[in-house]
Amino acid sequence: MKRKIIIDCDPGHDDIMAILLSLAHPEEIEILGYTTVCGNQLVEKVTRNLCQVLTAIHREGKIAVGYDAPLYYAPDPQPLAHGESGLDGPQLPEAKIAPLAIHAVDFLKQQLEQSEEPVTLVALAPLTNLAVFLKTYPQLKEKIAMITLMGGAIGKGNILPKAEFNIYEDPHAAKIVFESGVPIVMSGIEVCDDCSILHSEIDALKGSGPIQDLAHEILQFFSRYSRERGKDRSPLFDVAPIMHLLHPEYFISRPASVQVEVAGQYTRGMTVVDQREGVSQKQLNTELLLSCDREKFIQCFLEGLAWLDKN
Amino acid sequence: MKRKIIIDCDPGHDDIMAILLSLAHPEEIEILGYTTVCGNQLVEKVTRNLCQVLTAIHREGKIAVGYDAPLYYAPDPQPLAHGESGLDGPQLPEAKIAPLAIHAVDFLKQQLEQSEEPVTLVALAPLTNLAVFLKTYPQLKEKIAMITLMGGAIGKGNILPKAEFNIYEDPHAAKIVFESGVPIVMSGIEVCDDCSILHSEIDALKGSGPIQDLAHEILQFFSRYSRERGKDRSPLFDVAPIMHLLHPEYFISRPASVQVEVAGQYTRGMTVVDQREGVSQKQLNTELLLSCDREKFIQCFLEGLAWLDKN
Amino acid sequence: MKRKIIIDCDPGHDDIMAILLSLAHPEEIEILGYTTVCGNQLVEKVTRNLCQVLTAIHREGKIAVGYDAPLYYAPDPQPLAHGESGLDGPQLPEAKIAPLAIHAVDFLKQQLEQSEEPVTLVALAPLTNLAVFLKTYPQLKEKIAMITLMGGAIGKGNILPKAEFNIYEDPHAAKIVFESGVPIVMSGIEVCDDCSILHSEIDALKGSGPIQDLAHEILQFFSRYSRERGKDRSPLFDVAPIMHLLHPEYFISRPASVQVEVAGQYTRGMTVVDQREGVSQKQLNTELLLSCDREKFIQCFLEGLAWLDKN
Amino acid sequence: MKRKIIIDCDPGHDDIMAILLSLAHPEEIEILGYTTVCGNQLVEKVTRNLCQVLTAIHREGKIAVGYDAPLYYAPDPQPLAHGESGLDGPQLPEAKIAPLAIHAVDFLKQQLEQSEEPVTLVALAPLTNLAVFLKTYPQLKEKIAMITLMGGAIGKGNILPKAEFNIYEDPHAAKIVFESGVPIVMSGIEVCDDCSILHSEIDALKGSGPIQDLAHEILQFFSRYSRERGKDRSPLFDVAPIMHLLHPEYFISRPASVQVEVAGQYTRGMTVVDQREGVSQKQLNTELLLSCDREKFIQCFLEGLAWLDKN
Repeated sequence: MKRKIIIDCDPGHDDIMAILLSLAHPEEIEILGYTTVCGNQLVEKVTRNLCQVLTAIHREGKIAVGYDAPLYYAPDPQPLAHGESGLDGPQLPEAKIAPLAIHAVDFLKQQLEQSEEPVTLVALAPLTNLAVFLKTYPQLKEKIAMITLMGGAIGKGNILPKAEFNIYEDPHAAKIVFESGVPIVMSGIEVCDDCSILHSEIDALKGSGPIQDLAHEILQFFSRYSRERGKDRSPLFDVAPIMHLLHPEYFISRPASVQVEVAGQYTRGMTVVDQREGVSQKQLNTELLLSCDREKFIQCFLEGLAWLDKN
Repeated sequence: MKRKIIIDCDPGHDDIMAILLSLAHPEEIEILGYTTVCGNQLVEKVTRNLCQVLTAIHREGKIAVGYDAPLYYAPDPQPLAHGESGLDGPQLPEAKIAPLAIHAVDFLKQQLEQSEEPVTLVALAPLTNLAVFLKTYPQLKEKIAMITLMGGAIGKGNILPKAEFNIYEDPHAAKIVFESGVPIVMSGIEVCDDCSILHSEIDALKGSGPIQDLAHEILQFFSRYSRERGKDRSPLFDVAPIMHLLHPEYFISRPASVQVEVAGQYTRGMTVVDQREGVSQKQLNTELLLSCDREKFIQCFLEGLAWLDKN
Repeated sequence: MKRKIIIDCDPGHDDIMAILLSLAHPEEIEILGYTTVCGNQLVEKVTRNLCQVLTAIHREGKIAVGYDAPLYYAPDPQPLAHGESGLDGPQLPEAKIAPLAIHAVDFLKQQLEQSEEPVTLVALAPLTNLAVFLKTYPQLKEKIAMITLMGGAIGKGNILPKAEFNIYEDPHAAKIVFESGVPIVMSGIEVCDDCSILHSEIDALKGSGPIQDLAHEILQFFSRYSRERGKDRSPLFDVAPIMHLLHPEYFISRPASVQVEVAGQYTRGMTVVDQREGVSQKQLNTELLLSCDREKFIQCFLEGLAWLDKN
Repeated sequence: MKRKIIIDCDPGHDDIMAILLSLAHPEEIEILGYTTVCGNQLVEKVTRNLCQVLTAIHREGKIAVGYDAPLYYAPDPQPLAHGESGLDGPQLPEAKIAPLAIHAVDFLKQQLEQSEEPVTLVALAPLTNLAVFLKTYPQLKEKIAMITLMGGAIGKGNILPKAEFNIYEDPHAAKIVFESGVPIVMSGIEVCDDCSILHSEIDALKGSGPIQDLAHEILQFFSRYSRERGKDRSPLFDVAPIMHLLHPEYFISRPASVQVEVAGQYTRGMTVVDQREGVSQKQLNTELLLSCDREKFIQCFLEGLAWLDKN
């Protein structure tokens, strides 16, 4: 059965990889559209990146622009990770497609109302769009199959010792999402570390076809950070939730109680996973991905890229 | 060489076990005195407990009473864990020794000034006494060999999903201690879980001698919580730092950067261990105990109790 | 010239008085519609109250339901002030009008897009609806003539020593509104205290006509609190912004810098007015109403009620 | 009857004026000693200033050095107000007196234990010393006649729109002091504004005698800020509590409930005065000075300086 999804994103190098993997599985995934939001870079930049990439790969797509800042904190783009454009690295054509004249929140409303079956929301960015949508149209929660998101961590951190960027960026929004009652699947830092690509695998993409070449250029830039630190691989963060849709059997997971810290000098944006005994059934608001079989993951990912070049 | 220590405590069932272990090693440990503080119970209760136990085991000891509340938050005694007295369980004689007429902070000052060699501070309670001492007499830091403390966690929690009681109780004090520049050894929840006693080992203490009988009574009460949850063992939290003084070779540890969260809705009192790469040498303020060989631990602990009954 | 307004409200006794005053001035004020929000009571209750009152006074009106909770904090209805219904006191008919099938935020968007001239937003409740609207459709700020709101204080407080209920309830929303760049007129507690009705004036309403009778019943309940405290008058909080639209000359005001405190143990929801010298022009985000001529105020208010009974 | 006082200070230009006024009334005030603390400048600087000034005016005095930082926040000296030295302006001789080899907290303990009658603590700086003292030796509260302090505000602010420097600097300490149960008299910004000296009055001090010359030099520097803003006077903040000891009849005051905000983005260190009705007797923890008769104040102050030059 084909799963309908909307991808909420801030492309972003790994966002694009996640989108490519989705596009490589038209039998299993139907992308109803994309919503963009301030995250890796300002919303106008990440929207332009998305339009340009879709143009480059000759694809259509409905794109609705969302919030240009988190609910409470100020935008905090990450040029070190993603460059000034938010997608530095590849040479991209001018965009031939444009975003819709409708806000991301309205697009989500429209799509969910129109869909006869529940829709899966794939969140690859700070959760501002989804939070306002859930808060404004709670009656549409029943049209959401689940929210599968890249964000948070069990015990690690990147932007802070114990906080991951997407949640840190808009913890108030994350809190609304995690407390919404909608089924949540969380790909935190730990499982994303399993969803890594070897730098040799990146290098091998070159010359295999236009889309694999594009992926190569994007991942070359994206892997700079890890390469400079002597690592042999880079985690493909945002790809994790899409892979989990395609192949849940590659992953180990368990239900968990997750609360979002919005304040804290050192813990803003921490996903507080309660691992104590005695956590009640009712508190288990999240399916927490714990680990992934990297070999299967990367094989499926690379086959997807190759398939795109052939189809 | 004999190590001089002062034990800052809130007895407390496991505090007493830590004290018994210390007393069982007079060749290696000289207890200069005890300071008490509000923690497991109010300070007058835990002080009385200490006086009564020392009376029961026919020991002397200098005791100085410290703070009756944390620096900022209100006292939060734990009758479920330690009973209304703070040491429910054993029948104890009336105390024949009394605390000194001097505040814990003044006692610490006096002892450190008098000692020719550096003194080890063993902290088994919220860190209020030590924090004010360090803040008031920074010139005496050089007389502190180290502060070895039971408190905090790497990723677990007890009072909160990610916070341990001693640090949660007075996070402002903990922050002062961890930022003091004095060498810190931290026994968090994880290593304390290794420092467990089997319930069968508790049962076996009975009838072996007066001190082992006393330990049996204390640990019977203390282990109720774990027994009720179907566990076969109970962690002897406060014993960990003393055992680490006696046998550091039983433990695996590493230097770490630890910051204390004082605010946070879900993270008050969390010891934020920075496990990211790139933590600088300068940030490594803590020797973090990671694990302990339980078999060696418990053998040494039980031999200590037996020794006390023979000497 | 007729001013177009949308009233964002949580009726609420004084909300109804503000609406009545608006309806009494059709030459000067055109009510495009009403948006409701969680405040004095839950949103379904205050919406029902509004529908019932409009039915009782034989009026139409477009009503769009908004948020059922603040952005971050939990709802905190005030039954002591407004009763369990949010409008205890009067006997009201069953509602013959129903809210639109459109969210308050969408209604605001629709109305502002449709209006050729800028619209004045009158905010008599927590600012959740307006905040999300401003955040979602910033391009429509140019269609807002101003936001005139009842909320905050210069130095007084009601729900807290230094915080007023509407701002306290959703300080995150208030912060968004005050920082939006839209012209703000603030009727805080101080000027509302000038906008009082004598209890003898309430009593005199009885028997003068159906609407004055309704107002009498509503104000009888509303004035209980002040009467019990031996006061001779009750402030008509929400009426202040409407009166200021009709008769700015009754008021003394000045430009001010206002920031909203979202945290704070004692200061959550405080409108921090910077009264220090050296506040720059740029920081002056609010026209702050300082005082009102009560005699003129009450005369206009009572004439309005009488006019409604005659027209 | 002569009142025994200890002056807790961070001189600081106005601290020195307060000390001079105290010294001018030996029949009414006996200064048992001085404790210094980090505030206007680091503690070593303000201590040196005090030693130098006492040397300059040929006085003895017991001085005990206190904390070099607030309990929680970092030191935040104010060179713009007080210069790099903390007492820029006058040429001072090298100090011939030195602080005692005892901490401020110990000095307070010693003095209160020794005094047969209760001692008045005059606090002209952040309240770190007093807070730790009260927390450590609560049994000595009965030896404190009152704490009369310069700090806080009713509705004004200086370092923040609604916060005064001394309380802002160490709000955790202030909270301990205000909640201590000891009688508190608070000279906030408002009454200090009444305790002003005209710039013409400063100018007139010159050439009248060595101490008046010293005061002139100190006040010349101190009044720069007000002069540059075109004011005709400068508030002598720290003098207010001393004047209130000498002449309470110059002041209007009332009992009040005061709570200290320790957090808050805009309200850290705010003294939250509850002016709502219904504040209970039990909450009235502070005698709040509201206003002062400036003419009487300044006459007494200037006479004090003149008296010092004659005695």
